[in-house]
Amino acid sequence: MAQIRVAIINVTGYIGVDLARLLLQHPEVQLYCVTGRSLAGKRLSEVFPHLASSDLVIQPDLDASADFVFSAMPHKASAEIVEPLVKQGLKVIDVSADFRLKDSREYEAWYGIPHPYPQLLASAVYGLPELHHAEIAQAQLVANPGCYPTGAILALAPAMASAMTEGDIIVDSKSGVSGAGRSLTLTTHYAECNESVAAYAVAGHRHMPEIRQECELLNSNVYDVVFQPHLVPMTRGILSTCYLRLSQNWLRGTDDPGQTVVQAYRDFYESAPFVRVVDVPPATKQVWGSNYCHVFPRFDSRTGRLLVISCIDNLVKGGAGQAVQNMNLMCGFPETSGLDALPIYP
Amino acid sequence: MAQIRVAIINVTGYIGVDLARLLLQHPEVQLYCVTGRSLAGKRLSEVFPHLASSDLVIQPDLDASADFVFSAMPHKASAEIVEPLVKQGLKVIDVSADFRLKDSREYEAWYGIPHPYPQLLASAVYGLPELHHAEIAQAQLVANPGCYPTGAILALAPAMASAMTEGDIIVDSKSGVSGAGRSLTLTTHYAECNESVAAYAVAGHRHMPEIRQECELLNSNVYDVVFQPHLVPMTRGILSTCYLRLSQNWLRGTDDPGQTVVQAYRDFYESAPFVRVVDVPPATKQVWGSNYCHVFPRFDSRTGRLLVISCIDNLVKGGAGQAVQNMNLMCGFPETSGLDALPIYP
Amino acid sequence: MAQIRVAIINVTGYIGVDLARLLLQHPEVQLYCVTGRSLAGKRLSEVFPHLASSDLVIQPDLDASADFVFSAMPHKASAEIVEPLVKQGLKVIDVSADFRLKDSREYEAWYGIPHPYPQLLASAVYGLPELHHAEIAQAQLVANPGCYPTGAILALAPAMASAMTEGDIIVDSKSGVSGAGRSLTLTTHYAECNESVAAYAVAGHRHMPEIRQECELLNSNVYDVVFQPHLVPMTRGILSTCYLRLSQNWLRGTDDPGQTVVQAYRDFYESAPFVRVVDVPPATKQVWGSNYCHVFPRFDSRTGRLLVISCIDNLVKGGAGQAVQNMNLMCGFPETSGLDALPIYP
Amino acid sequence: MAQIRVAIINVTGYIGVDLARLLLQHPEVQLYCVTGRSLAGKRLSEVFPHLASSDLVIQPDLDASADFVFSAMPHKASAEIVEPLVKQGLKVIDVSADFRLKDSREYEAWYGIPHPYPQLLASAVYGLPELHHAEIAQAQLVANPGCYPTGAILALAPAMASAMTEGDIIVDSKSGVSGAGRSLTLTTHYAECNESVAAYAVAGHRHMPEIRQECELLNSNVYDVVFQPHLVPMTRGILSTCYLRLSQNWLRGTDDPGQTVVQAYRDFYESAPFVRVVDVPPATKQVWGSNYCHVFPRFDSRTGRLLVISCIDNLVKGGAGQAVQNMNLMCGFPETSGLDALPIYP
Repeated sequence: MAQIRVAIINVTGYIGVDLARLLLQHPEVQLYCVTGRSLAGKRLSEVFPHLASSDLVIQPDLDASADFVFSAMPHKASAEIVEPLVKQGLKVIDVSADFRLKDSREYEAWYGIPHPYPQLLASAVYGLPELHHAEIAQAQLVANPGCYPTGAILALAPAMASAMTEGDIIVDSKSGVSGAGRSLTLTTHYAECNESVAAYAVAGHRHMPEIRQECELLNSNVYDVVFQPHLVPMTRGILSTCYLRLSQNWLRGTDDPGQTVVQAYRDFYESAPFVRVVDVPPATKQVWGSNYCHVFPRFDSRTGRLLVISCIDNLVKGGAGQAVQNMNLMCGFPETSGLDALPIYP
Repeated sequence: MAQIRVAIINVTGYIGVDLARLLLQHPEVQLYCVTGRSLAGKRLSEVFPHLASSDLVIQPDLDASADFVFSAMPHKASAEIVEPLVKQGLKVIDVSADFRLKDSREYEAWYGIPHPYPQLLASAVYGLPELHHAEIAQAQLVANPGCYPTGAILALAPAMASAMTEGDIIVDSKSGVSGAGRSLTLTTHYAECNESVAAYAVAGHRHMPEIRQECELLNSNVYDVVFQPHLVPMTRGILSTCYLRLSQNWLRGTDDPGQTVVQAYRDFYESAPFVRVVDVPPATKQVWGSNYCHVFPRFDSRTGRLLVISCIDNLVKGGAGQAVQNMNLMCGFPETSGLDALPIYP
Repeated sequence: MAQIRVAIINVTGYIGVDLARLLLQHPEVQLYCVTGRSLAGKRLSEVFPHLASSDLVIQPDLDASADFVFSAMPHKASAEIVEPLVKQGLKVIDVSADFRLKDSREYEAWYGIPHPYPQLLASAVYGLPELHHAEIAQAQLVANPGCYPTGAILALAPAMASAMTEGDIIVDSKSGVSGAGRSLTLTTHYAECNESVAAYAVAGHRHMPEIRQECELLNSNVYDVVFQPHLVPMTRGILSTCYLRLSQNWLRGTDDPGQTVVQAYRDFYESAPFVRVVDVPPATKQVWGSNYCHVFPRFDSRTGRLLVISCIDNLVKGGAGQAVQNMNLMCGFPETSGLDALPIYP
Repeated sequence: MAQIRVAIINVTGYIGVDLARLLLQHPEVQLYCVTGRSLAGKRLSEVFPHLASSDLVIQPDLDASADFVFSAMPHKASAEIVEPLVKQGLKVIDVSADFRLKDSREYEAWYGIPHPYPQLLASAVYGLPELHHAEIAQAQLVANPGCYPTGAILALAPAMASAMTEGDIIVDSKSGVSGAGRSLTLTTHYAECNESVAAYAVAGHRHMPEIRQECELLNSNVYDVVFQPHLVPMTRGILSTCYLRLSQNWLRGTDDPGQTVVQAYRDFYESAPFVRVVDVPPATKQVWGSNYCHVFPRFDSRTGRLLVISCIDNLVKGGAGQAVQNMNLMCGFPETSGLDALPIYP
């Protein structure tokens, strides 16, 4: 079977280049084109020496021969470049935030601009395969989730899908610095962020409405999501610690709440190849470089609370790997194709 | 004036050796004796080359000439060594957990042994100077707080002391690895914990009852404290992110809740030389190597929640520095004596 | 074709477990047995959660059905366990130091014990495929090189094989902490080695004679090798900076020494799939998680010196990956089989 | 006695701000003015929260009332701002490279511009107190040494001052990332340099001629200095590993070369308060945050080589601390004034 021809628009960020790494090793596709304005004309291997085996040259623009396109442009620019491709009938995965929020008013509220193409929002699919498997398989345009929402929603979804919780949801996330991207900032300057932990975006982070949107799809009683991200001194990984309250009603009707919660999580992810419900608190290192998400739910009988901790590699399951997983579904490949590398430890 | 003669029992852990560093530079005291069983007979400077200027030799046991003693023994062993010293009339600061919890049943529940000397609990003072300044000044035996409780209680106290909150309290803390001590464990083996974040003690951490005890002293309505610690790949520092709920009653009676909260925090710490209420989210690096605690309270009008973030150096304000601060109060020295070093950045 | 049945003796160290990771993904073999005394009876996935997809249980001892065995035992213990396997006719790769040095007196001098099986030294092959490709393909017992020697010899070999240098050789190596293994030591305790660089083994490191042995095989004029290792605060990676002197004789007979050196390096590694002669100074991150070695030779016309810098992942090309590469040659598999994963960056 | 009034021109880099930290705590001076063009008008404590106790406001320009000025401007700009101050009779320490090299042709060769004020070079003193104590005390203009030269020269000087060595000198240095400054670059972007080691400036680093100049002052036979810097993933610290050859002549005339070397080092630094000749290989962490330099010389009888390893905190002894030490000498203060803080470990 002929490999499909795949392109990455804007390969030069961390999600873009990790997509290139994964696609160069994917058995079903040929990565034939990568673009990047400021570095156009350079060999990919010159800019990214770990990809020394590739002879691709970074192009200024996409050519016309792609079968499948990933856009890793910033938001707004991404919608503008994606819209004509969708019109042409290409299958597209947008790694930016442009098509994640279903409500264009939410988009405007959080991104500060009117949505460039609100008419595409209805058909775009939120690309979290563990929730939207069937729709992704039928989609032409998939919005790849944000890194934080991926970990947070996977931690929350089974609890939301049951009726076990009540009250608000607190998600305290700790991210490695690569999540802030490859653009230079004082925040990500080594001497500033090394040996330091800090919270940021205390006035609200754009990933919160994604988390809330997907929770509300699963449970109409969700009322408040508190999401607080932190930067920790490591390169890759997100750990999300989620604090939920089990409903008094549910607790009264449940014999062994601890075991019941765990079973609900196991059932929910029974057919999800990349999510593992684990018995001991997970560490981000356990999924480093892989597309896995480890989820650890724990009922605390003293407080009646449900603690759920998840971890992912923010650039793989939280970015490039999830995009490949979405491509696999959209193209009818095995869901794990090109994604079966084990985590690298230590 | 003659300097007082000070000793450290068990200098070989991280709190012990940081106490030595601070006391060697303290203008009012002479560190004349440091003990440590396994390393007795070695020069302190051989075991800890950063203290090369000291000619102290590590002793097997305390001699009789001390004016003031710090015990950095593990819990239980510490109580056993401290009790006779207290009987002799010496002033003692116990860095271990033995005299922190007022209720010996709590001690037994969390430490798994009956308290060795429950009769001392009534007179021992919890050594958080920002809450117990006057009692510490009068105390003979001070229990130095745990590292997590120090940061957490300083973040919570002004809210507790007012009647602004209701509902439970969630404290999500992120600690550097030195907090786990100098004893070798797989958890603190470099290749295991570097480039990784993980939660631990999900079934309950011994520092939780300390936090709850001090909150309850300030506010009789406190009912539940959820405390979840995490290990992050850095050497020093604790960031605690606290999620509180402002009471509906209080909100109804308050014109500008955001500003009122900040003012309550500023008022509470007006005379505390080491606590700074800050305007932007703090980073642990900003207090590295110092006795400062930065506290950042923020009201979120969208959710009605109060977010409070604090950071400390876990070995200084969370350990050795706070012990020196307590000694200063107990001995009538200026509170900041020997503790005025600025944080080292970057 | 039936997969061959492969076993790892002592899977619980970092080389052992990285071998497990690679072999579990290898298309030509079945990892059917892993042993480890202290952890026998536990599931591999329990001890190493990144290998959650494996259902192997750690065995106390090797059973009799192996086709191919890797020993990751410590030296001496390894020779003792390997010798009977070799006698039985099994193919074995010894990851320990026991069969690396051809001269048993050298072994005794550096390891402090008489060699347990000196009679095996003649037939054992030093498993650096770039130097001993054909012998490895014929070998029954291969001694997997040390991590430092792998990087250092690959940096030095082309210069040694030509007659371009004279005088002594200085190798200054910087290693990540995983190179020190999984056993707990104060040196590898996070708070001790983080944010610090130090030299160690200044009185001589056991990897020096390996480097000298292989250089002498290529060039009979080698007289002195100075090798100084350092520990740097990162998990994986070795960078070796080698200082050589080009011979006056060679320089007089060479028109463009800079280009000639580079060409000699390119020619030497023309058919080596994992060695890349690069144009800019390499960084260890560029080979992270992969079996590649980047080598950067540079002639300095001001001083007449030749600087050669190499970098590897110490656990892959410096350990488990190289062992798999050797297995591939010994079994007639493609040299890169199971080793084609690209480095993971950043 | 009235404190002298001190100013820092360009406080916003890492040396500048660490100077501010030290001067704010210095008992003999008052830091009354700090300048910084881009951040003028902001409070120092806003830009650098660790200096929260200062109420200084960053000024656009120096005012006229300084007694003593530190310039932390980049080279060339520094000379231009320093020259009129020197003319006015002010004492000045230039932290930039402008007055370090005595030979203006060397300056031009390495910095690519003609020296702006070559007439000042004769009277400017190279501010390494361990070599130029008396001249510094008399100087009006002191050139603060580079970070690498400080560690390297302190490692080399005793050997140079004796006649014990011959042949070339190799200095392999490993620096923390703060040495690259506070300006944003891809090289110092966290995700790029974390978990990676690399050499840089392989074509020659501007600090080499400083090292050579000072070595030649001590020993007229120095002929070649090879200096190779590396970036390692930590914030502060430089470890320099120096490879020297002891002369055959000297070895023949010396009974116990190992002990003689050590004694020569101890004698050389007998009256240097910040240099410690140590018995075991030092680690950068042992001097973290302090003005100390640990020097470890070791004779290798096998190779006849002399290995000398030194470590410093690159921002203190390699920058701001050394500048304060120079100021102390220039102003007649005790040499250690304001510099007696012990290193912070771990």
